[in-house]
Amino acid sequence: MEIIKKRNLEVCISPALLGAYDTNDKIVVLIDILRATSTICTALHYGVKEIIPVSTVEEAKFYKNNGYIVAGERDGKILDFADYGNSPDNFMNYSLKGKSIAYSTTNGTKAVKLTENCKKLVFGGYLNHTLLSNWLIKQNNDVLILCSGWKNRLSLEDTLYAGALSENLLNSNLYISICDSVTASVELWHNAKENLILYIDKCAHRHRLKTMGLDNIIEYCHTFDVTPVIPFYKKNTIIAL
Amino acid sequence: MEIIKKRNLEVCISPALLGAYDTNDKIVVLIDILRATSTICTALHYGVKEIIPVSTVEEAKFYKNNGYIVAGERDGKILDFADYGNSPDNFMNYSLKGKSIAYSTTNGTKAVKLTENCKKLVFGGYLNHTLLSNWLIKQNNDVLILCSGWKNRLSLEDTLYAGALSENLLNSNLYISICDSVTASVELWHNAKENLILYIDKCAHRHRLKTMGLDNIIEYCHTFDVTPVIPFYKKNTIIAL
Repeated sequence: MEIIKKRNLEVCISPALLGAYDTNDKIVVLIDILRATSTICTALHYGVKEIIPVSTVEEAKFYKNNGYIVAGERDGKILDFADYGNSPDNFMNYSLKGKSIAYSTTNGTKAVKLTENCKKLVFGGYLNHTLLSNWLIKQNNDVLILCSGWKNRLSLEDTLYAGALSENLLNSNLYISICDSVTASVELWHNAKENLILYIDKCAHRHRLKTMGLDNIIEYCHTFDVTPVIPFYKKNTIIAL
Repeated sequence: MEIIKKRNLEVCISPALLGAYDTNDKIVVLIDILRATSTICTALHYGVKEIIPVSTVEEAKFYKNNGYIVAGERDGKILDFADYGNSPDNFMNYSLKGKSIAYSTTNGTKAVKLTENCKKLVFGGYLNHTLLSNWLIKQNNDVLILCSGWKNRLSLEDTLYAGALSENLLNSNLYISICDSVTASVELWHNAKENLILYIDKCAHRHRLKTMGLDNIIEYCHTFDVTPVIPFYKKNTIIAL
């Protein structure tokens, strides 16, 4: 009988808690459902060659001044010098096929810099759910699901998806978890999944986006398997696996 | 018609996220169900005069060397020089009536030091639930519920109680919340409350305590209104309000 060593599964609900986790040799799945990882999946699915994650506004400006296409926002508002905002509908066409984009967001791209010593950093959400789950299950590695949150606080929409992905992984019987954040996110996901879009109305960020007229993508960002691509981080860029 | 300005309610699920919150002029409710705040409520209810929260083992030793009674643990193990551990059953008698105790725990007492600029820091749990809820409702202040967590991670048992207290406060119609951590904790509490003790079996820390033979107080720490006292922080000590 072959004994299979189970992999460890953890959820970190904010980048500000990452210091309490060991990312070494783990696969980290970064989640920012509204909207960075949904946008990244969409852009790569529609043929964008690479996305360069940028932390600061100054850095984004540097790329702009050096001829790059720049997508960026702060607190939901497009940066005044940027070509695109942070909404996936900006990238739902093939006009940027083969292009490189520098990309800076309030929460999503900052977290990228915090996971330098992990085995692989991939980006996930409803849009690439099945492909990502199956790929993770094929790897023989511990997994840490990292929620981008909102300004270092827990964000409900990211935590819910952490629960959806955790459920898939735990159902494979290849993972174990002794992490309360996994338990909490799976419980929340169970409460939400029967009517996800209605449930998302509880999320503070859903209302922030509504106030700014940016909530047209809520349903899209919560739709399973629309963009079957696994974005991953390699040498300062995000490309498709 | 008198217009009442509603108070803001927030939950912070780990002391490591406190930097994302403004504690200024708020009432902070510190929670460490297993076991610091349950122990503090118990000790004060049984007549202990004051509890001096101590962050480091070295500091606890200093108090011991200066004649104080010391209660302290790290990772569930009693400090070798301490008189008592961190279990409420150590204090379920009147032998320490009128005494001062220096108290150091893995998670609970560290958080005390992080809230220096708040209006008032109080300690809460199931043991003082109704008294604390009613007292908070009588104050006209914003409330931040701060979970001690486990080594800066989310702990399910603290998050559940944050939900129980949030539900009570929101039901008064005197509070509003645009905080996803409030929403998440109330949702989790709804899942748990019908059979709380069974639900607590999902908590990682419940199993840590079991392994160390310290889980005899699980049910006690999840019992409503056994110790009707509100511990609060004043000039480096915790006393009864």
